[in-house]
Amino acid sequence: MTFDPSRLKYDAAGLIPAIAQDADSGEVLMMAWMSEEAVRRTLESGRVTYWSRSRSDFWIKGETSGNVQELVDFRVDCDRDCLLVTVRQTGPACHTNRRSCFYTAVREGEEVELMEPMS
Amino acid sequence: MTFDPSRLKYDAAGLIPAIAQDADSGEVLMMAWMSEEAVRRTLESGRVTYWSRSRSDFWIKGETSGNVQELVDFRVDCDRDCLLVTVRQTGPACHTNRRSCFYTAVREGEEVELMEPMS
Repeated sequence: MTFDPSRLKYDAAGLIPAIAQDADSGEVLMMAWMSEEAVRRTLESGRVTYWSRSRSDFWIKGETSGNVQELVDFRVDCDRDCLLVTVRQTGPACHTNRRSCFYTAVREGEEVELMEPMS
Repeated sequence: MTFDPSRLKYDAAGLIPAIAQDADSGEVLMMAWMSEEAVRRTLESGRVTYWSRSRSDFWIKGETSGNVQELVDFRVDCDRDCLLVTVRQTGPACHTNRRSCFYTAVREGEEVELMEPMS
């Protein structure tokens, strides 16, 4: 079946959540949002491209920081309302300079920091 | 720091996306939504509990199917607007009986099915 980005299910703002996972380690790096056009650009360019809700603009991951995400595999879930991109991540994925955005765990009711910023 | 579920960032509907990842294999299994109370119940019970947007009710994963998700680790992202739960998944996570909801890949413009339903 030929893939048609317009046949994904976008929310009221025209966005779909996209989970980025490290293709080699399996680590979940971040979650951000894509518009239909961001999906198209990601697939065409092989550079993971989100829609920035704060800037209301396309966000080619790493374009300014250099911490690019090279697309390895693009997956759609059963309901067609969530995406999983496996990526080759250069440097940290998180704006705090940590490898992953999910660096805080909740254990026995306390927040525990699992990762240091990369140097 | 003591964790307070009310200090996560919920969307206009009072929900936060939660990614479920297999704690052993690292496979991303599904993405669903939690309300503040679902977060609380997940942490208290150790049984991953979502909010079903279609049923407008709590959804203790596996309660009817037996395909439960035992909570292994609960993580919060840098923006506090997305959760990652690592889980021990009994049986398939997907309602299509597949291990993961992300069983469709897009490769060279075509949709490719990566997984068979579990028997």
